[in-house]
Amino acid sequence: MDRKEFRDLASPADAREAIRALSLGAGTERVPLAEARGRVLAERIDADLDVPGFDRASLDGYALRARDTFGADEADPADLAVVGEVHAGEEPSLDVGDGEAVEISTGAVMPPGADAMVPVERTDLDDGRVRVRTSVAPGDNVMFAGADVAAGERALGPGTRLTPREVGLLSALGVEEVPVRARPRVGIVSTGDELVRPGEKLRSERGEIYDVNSYSIAAGVEDAGGEAVLYPHAGDDREEMERLLREAADECDLVLSSGSTSASAVDVIYRVIEERGELLLHGVSVKPGKPMLVGRLDDSAYVGLPGYPVSAMMVFRTFVAPAIRGAAGLPEPAAATVAGRMAIQARSEQGRHRLLPVGLLADGDGGTLVYPVDKGSGATTTLAEADGVVEVDAGTDYLEAGESVDVALFSADVRPPTLFGVGEDDPTLNRLLDRLGNPRYLPVGSRPALRRLREGVPDVAVVAGPLDRAVEGAKLGGWSREWGLVVPADDPDGIGGLADLVERDLRFVNRTTDSGLRTSLGNAVAELADERDTERRALVAAIDGFDLGLRAHESPARRVLAGEADAGLGLRETADRLDLGFVPLGEQRVRVLANPERREKPGVRELAAALDEVGGA
Amino acid sequence: MDRKEFRDLASPADAREAIRALSLGAGTERVPLAEARGRVLAERIDADLDVPGFDRASLDGYALRARDTFGADEADPADLAVVGEVHAGEEPSLDVGDGEAVEISTGAVMPPGADAMVPVERTDLDDGRVRVRTSVAPGDNVMFAGADVAAGERALGPGTRLTPREVGLLSALGVEEVPVRARPRVGIVSTGDELVRPGEKLRSERGEIYDVNSYSIAAGVEDAGGEAVLYPHAGDDREEMERLLREAADECDLVLSSGSTSASAVDVIYRVIEERGELLLHGVSVKPGKPMLVGRLDDSAYVGLPGYPVSAMMVFRTFVAPAIRGAAGLPEPAAATVAGRMAIQARSEQGRHRLLPVGLLADGDGGTLVYPVDKGSGATTTLAEADGVVEVDAGTDYLEAGESVDVALFSADVRPPTLFGVGEDDPTLNRLLDRLGNPRYLPVGSRPALRRLREGVPDVAVVAGPLDRAVEGAKLGGWSREWGLVVPADDPDGIGGLADLVERDLRFVNRTTDSGLRTSLGNAVAELADERDTERRALVAAIDGFDLGLRAHESPARRVLAGEADAGLGLRETADRLDLGFVPLGEQRVRVLANPERREKPGVRELAAALDEVGGA
Repeated sequence: MDRKEFRDLASPADAREAIRALSLGAGTERVPLAEARGRVLAERIDADLDVPGFDRASLDGYALRARDTFGADEADPADLAVVGEVHAGEEPSLDVGDGEAVEISTGAVMPPGADAMVPVERTDLDDGRVRVRTSVAPGDNVMFAGADVAAGERALGPGTRLTPREVGLLSALGVEEVPVRARPRVGIVSTGDELVRPGEKLRSERGEIYDVNSYSIAAGVEDAGGEAVLYPHAGDDREEMERLLREAADECDLVLSSGSTSASAVDVIYRVIEERGELLLHGVSVKPGKPMLVGRLDDSAYVGLPGYPVSAMMVFRTFVAPAIRGAAGLPEPAAATVAGRMAIQARSEQGRHRLLPVGLLADGDGGTLVYPVDKGSGATTTLAEADGVVEVDAGTDYLEAGESVDVALFSADVRPPTLFGVGEDDPTLNRLLDRLGNPRYLPVGSRPALRRLREGVPDVAVVAGPLDRAVEGAKLGGWSREWGLVVPADDPDGIGGLADLVERDLRFVNRTTDSGLRTSLGNAVAELADERDTERRALVAAIDGFDLGLRAHESPARRVLAGEADAGLGLRETADRLDLGFVPLGEQRVRVLANPERREKPGVRELAAALDEVGGA
Repeated sequence: MDRKEFRDLASPADAREAIRALSLGAGTERVPLAEARGRVLAERIDADLDVPGFDRASLDGYALRARDTFGADEADPADLAVVGEVHAGEEPSLDVGDGEAVEISTGAVMPPGADAMVPVERTDLDDGRVRVRTSVAPGDNVMFAGADVAAGERALGPGTRLTPREVGLLSALGVEEVPVRARPRVGIVSTGDELVRPGEKLRSERGEIYDVNSYSIAAGVEDAGGEAVLYPHAGDDREEMERLLREAADECDLVLSSGSTSASAVDVIYRVIEERGELLLHGVSVKPGKPMLVGRLDDSAYVGLPGYPVSAMMVFRTFVAPAIRGAAGLPEPAAATVAGRMAIQARSEQGRHRLLPVGLLADGDGGTLVYPVDKGSGATTTLAEADGVVEVDAGTDYLEAGESVDVALFSADVRPPTLFGVGEDDPTLNRLLDRLGNPRYLPVGSRPALRRLREGVPDVAVVAGPLDRAVEGAKLGGWSREWGLVVPADDPDGIGGLADLVERDLRFVNRTTDSGLRTSLGNAVAELADERDTERRALVAAIDGFDLGLRAHESPARRVLAGEADAGLGLRETADRLDLGFVPLGEQRVRVLANPERREKPGVRELAAALDEVGGA
C-alpha cells in the first residue's frame, strides 16, 4: 500500500459520498418500551388488539337503553330503575333491561343490554330510581371497541421517531418491546503519544496535553444518534495501539481515530488498514480537514479525523455525523441553519473548500451578525467560542463585511449569546457575567477590545487603565480595582515596591501588553525612571521577567503560588483569594463601553442593570 | 380538608404560577466528563491550568532562533546545524544555540533557546544541516503556553448547556468530573383499577386497558430534562397505592399521578395530601385539564394530571414540562412554534381556555395548514395524529377557516407529515405508506374521505368500491382487491356464498358502513334480494351480525380466527396471510385521489411514484 498521500485531494462531495457508501447500518434491536423514547422504529407496528377492547362509558353516569329516554327532557324526565353499578376495571355482573339503568363510571364496560349512557349531570337519583332529564341516541357517550385503534390497523410506520406521543400509542397497544434501529456503534481510538486522559496527571514539561477529541467526538457521536465506545488510550505503546484498533474494528460499525502527529500512530493505522481493510480516500480538499482518511477495516468503516480539536470536530460534523444519523434513522436536525451577514471581512484560502468557524451575534435591529472565530491552529477554545460553520467554496477569496451567509449551527439548539463582550480579564467582571443569561466574553485585553468595538463587532468592550486615545462607545458603568505586586504569603523577600524589582535579583512575572495592568505598570516604571532621571528602558531591562507577559489576570499570582516567581503583576483581590501577600501600586478604573447601536439590546441592558447593582455606574 | 372542588377554577396563568412556585430545584451533582453531554453547568468553571501547558510547535519543522533566519529567502537560505529532534510527548533533551536547529513535530515542546519554528515545507535537509528558505519572527508558528486558555481564566459560565464543544473545552482543561444541575426526579404513580402495564395480560371483559400515561408522561419527563421514576402499578390495592404515593413523595422532587376514575384512587390521593401536604389548587379553567390538582407532599411537589391520555399529555406539556425544564436549567425548546392558518373551522367552548390538539400540513404553496384533531374523549391516537396545540382563549367561540394561528409543537423536532391521506384501510396501501418518508394516514373509510377531500384538508383520499356520486380530485392511481367472506381455515361450515349467511345460522362480522367493502357487500345483498324477489331489508335481518361493523380491514378476519365468528367480510389477501379460508364475492377498485392543488407537493409525487411502481396507475 502506498503510504504517501493520494495524488489528488478528494472533493468535499466525494468525501461525503465515500463515507455514505460505507453504510454503517447497525440492524435492528428490541428495547423495552420505557427505553424507546428518541429511538426510530425499525418496522411497521400494526395494532394487535382493539383499543378500547370493549364498549366503554365515556363519562360517569347511567348506562341504559336509548329508546327508554326518547322524548325525555327537563320538564318530563324518563324514570328508570337503577338495578346495579359497574366501575372501571370490573366485569358487569348484570344485563340492562327495558326501563332499567346501571350506574356506570368513566372507562367502565357497558353492561349487556345498554346501548347508550347519560352523564350524571343530566340525571337525579331518588330512592333507587334515576330521572333522566335528556334523551340520548344509541351510541351516545359510548366509545365502541376498536374506535380508537382497531385490531389490524397500521399504527406506526417504519422510520417513525418515537416521541412521548408515539410511546403513548405503543403503550395503548400493549407493546412491551419495541423493534428499533440499533444505534451504530462508533469506536473512538485515541492515538498520540502526547495525549493524557482527564483525571490523569499532566506532565507539561514532556509536552503532554489532555485528550480533547475523544470526549468531544464521543459527545458528537451520541448527539448524532450513535453509541460511542471510548477505547483506552495506548500512549506510545504501538502494540497496544494496534491491538485496540483491531478490537475496535471487531466490535464497532465505525472506527474513528483523530490524527496524531506521532509517527507511531500513523504507522500503526496504516499497518492495520493494510492488513485488514482498504483505504478509499486520503486527503480532502477542505480546510480544515485535509488529512482525513476514509477506509474500511473488515466489516467496520474507518474514518481518520485531523488531530487538532477544531478541525476534528468540524470534519466530524460535516462528513461523519450525517452518516451516523442516516444509519440511526434520524433526520437531519431541524432549523440547524441560520442566515446572517458578515460583521467583518473574513479571508479564505483560494483553492481549498473552507469550513470557517463563526460566532453569531444579534445586531441592534434583530438581524444576525456573523464573525469568524479563529484562534489559530490547535486552539480548543475556538470550538466553545463559535456557534457554527460557514462553508466557503474553493473559488472564494474572502467574504466581505455585510455579505449574506448561511451558518450551519453546531446543533439545532445553539442559541447565539445574549451578549458578546471583549476586553480585560477581571474577577469582578467574571462575577457579573455569571449573573447574565448566556453571555460570551473573550478576554482579549483592553486595546484589542477598543479596536474590535470600533470595528463594530462586539456589544461591549471592557477596558482598564490609562488608554492611548479617547474611548468611543456609550459608558455603561465600571468599577475600580487595586493593582500591585502579588508576592508570597509571608513576603519572605520583604518587597516594598517597584524599586525592589529593579534593584534586587527577584523573579517577576508580568501580564501581556494588551492588559490594562501592564499599561499602568509601564507608566509606573516611567515615573520611577523620571524620579531617578534615567531611561525607562534601563529600568525595564533590570527587571527579570518584565517581558514575560501572561494573559489571564490570575496567571502571574499562580506562578508566585507555585514558587516559580517572587512577584507577579496582579490584583489585591487575587492575592487575598489565593492567600498571598500584596504590595499595592495603584488603583485603576475598569470601564464597560457599549456599541452605541446596541445600547438597547436586551443583553446589554441586562449587563447595565447588573452593573448598577454592583454600584459601579 | 375540603374534598369538593375549589369553588372557582384557577386560570391557566395561575396554574402555571402555582407549579412554578413549587420549585423543583434538585441541586447539584458531579458527573464524569463522558456523561456530561446535554447537562447544564451548575457553577462557573475557571481554567485551572494553562492550555497548552508549554510553548508548543504548531507544525512539523525546525525549532530555531528567529534571528538566525533574518534575511533568508529562496535565493539565499539560512544554513543551520541540526543538533537533535523532539517529538510530541517528549521532553526536549537539548538547548538550541546560535546557528542551530532542532527537528520538531507538531505539538512538541519548543526546546530551550528556540524562539520560533519554520515549517518543513520551507526547508531542505542535507547531511545534518538544514537550509531555511524563509525568515521568521520570534514566536512564529509557536503557540505559547496559556495562549488557548490561561490558568485562572473564566472558561464556562454557570447555566451553560454542555454540547460536544463545551465537552471538548472541559477535556482540554483536564476536568474529569463536572458539576451539573441534578435532573429533577419525577415519580409517576399509576392509579386506576382498570390499568394494566404493557406486557401483562389484558382482560377486556373486565374493562381493563393498557396504561398509557405512565409511559408517555415518563417520556415527556425525560424530554424535559427530568429523570422519570415509574412506580409499580398498585391496581385496586388501596394500601399499596397509598404506600407507593408516600414512597414517591419521599424519593422524588415531583410526584405525578394521572387522574383515575376509580373512587379508590381519589380517596387515597386526598388522604395522603391531607396528612402530609397541602392542596394548592384544584381545577383549572382549561379544556382539557379541568381536574388538575397542584399541591405539595412534604418536600415534594405534587401534580395530579387528568386521566385521559390526550388530556394528561397536553396538561403535562403546557403546565408541568416548563417547570421541569426550569429546574433542570434547560431553555425552552427552540423553534417550537409554527405559524399557520386553519384549514377548516374549529369550534371551541366559550368560558374555558382550550388546548386544541392540531395536525399540521403543507399546502400547495409552501404555507402551513392547521386542522383540529379530536377523536373524542379517551382516544389515544389523537396524540399520535396531532403535531401540536393551539391555545384558544376563553372568550373565543371558534376559529374560522383561514384564520392565522400559532401552533405550539409537541417538540421542536416535530416534522409535519410529508403526506396527509385519509380513506380506506387496505393492506396494499399500508405497504405503499411504508415506502414513503413521513406520511400520516387516517383510515376513516371511503365516504368520509371524499367529504374531507372536498373540504380541502387532506392531500389524498383513498376510496374503494361503488360510490354514490362522481368523485372529484385528481386520480393518482389505484389497484384492485378481491373481497368476500373470510372463513375458518378448513371451512368447517362449508360456506359457499352470501346465500349461506342468509339461510343458515352463522355468526357473521361486517365492516363499518364507511368502508368500501361494506358498500360492495350491501350491493351484493341487494342483487340477491332482486334474484329472490324479496326485500333487501329482509335478507339483512336474516344475517346474524350484519349490523356489527368493525373499522379495520383485518378485524372481522381476526374474529373468525379467534373462533368468535363463522364468517367475516374481508380480503383474500387477509385470509391468505392469516391462513384462513376465503369465499370470493367480487373484485373492487381502490382509487387514490389527490387534492388538485397539491398534485405537485413532494409527498404526493412520492406517493404517485410508488403507485406507478406497484403498477396500479
